Amino acid sequence: MKIKIYSISKKQNKCDDFVKQIKQFGVVVEDINIFNSSIQKAQKISQQSARESYDLEFSKYIKSSALNIALHPNGKEIDTYAFSELLKNRSEILFFIGGAFGFNDAFLSKTINISLSKLTFSHRIAKIIIFEQIFRALSIINNHPYHKE
Amino acid sequence: MKIKIYSISKKQNKCDDFVKQIKQFGVVVEDINIFNSSIQKAQKISQQSARESYDLEFSKYIKSSALNIALHPNGKEIDTYAFSELLKNRSEILFFIGGAFGFNDAFLSKTINISLSKLTFSHRIAKIIIFEQIFRALSIINNHPYHKE
Repeated sequence: MKIKIYSISKKQNKCDDFVKQIKQFGVVVEDINIFNSSIQKAQKISQQSARESYDLEFSKYIKSSALNIALHPNGKEIDTYAFSELLKNRSEILFFIGGAFGFNDAFLSKTINISLSKLTFSHRIAKIIIFEQIFRALSIINNHPYHKE
Repeated sequence: MKIKIYSISKKQNKCDDFVKQIKQFGVVVEDINIFNSSIQKAQKISQQSARESYDLEFSKYIKSSALNIALHPNGKEIDTYAFSELLKNRSEILFFIGGAFGFNDAFLSKTINISLSKLTFSHRIAKIIIFEQIFRALSIINNHPYHKE
């Protein structure tokens, strides 16, 4: 299984500890931060322009052969077991964490949309949460004791 | 305003960055990890004994003059604005993050119970989340741009 996490983020905040922990399940997670001058310009124009600029970048990575998941406040809230069911028997899973202004509807129509919580999180926190959930879900799938610790 | 976060945790994982950031709002947050031999023994006996041992320790810190909040999966899920309303105009707020086996009902009857998410988090992640929410809530209360960044 391959997992990629795409974020719109200027900062190169990485979750290297979780990348290593997840590797024990034979799963390679890549943590990809995207930011460029088009996004920077668009964010100064309007929220809608910003969302279109994220869509333009993110859409390059959407794969019809993969499970494409966007983390979005209006997405479905699921528990850890439902999350682990979602990951089961997949060969490739792509997660998208939106930029400061979220996603546009065009992008969200191409993805399964999940909400982590009713609370608003920074991108850094959202990424830490999704990394731990991936590790926890793989622990459930592989009968590793982490989820019960 | 004073905030204290009590966790049942052997590991001394601290959130020093957030402690510093929160200080700019004139709020002192203390991050207190509790663990002792009674808890260790009780955890080996049964889940119920474990929960009673947490209750015994945590109950020492419950204050009738403070807002006492337990983070619990069966608590009420609130959004960041409701969370910031909860914190407003308080002189002291105490958060309790349960041990590996959660809380007993006796303890939960003494606290306001909040759930961070339908997802299950480790204590480390729950603590990171609550620290960021405290910072975010104080940003909203103080019109600091963080929540909109």
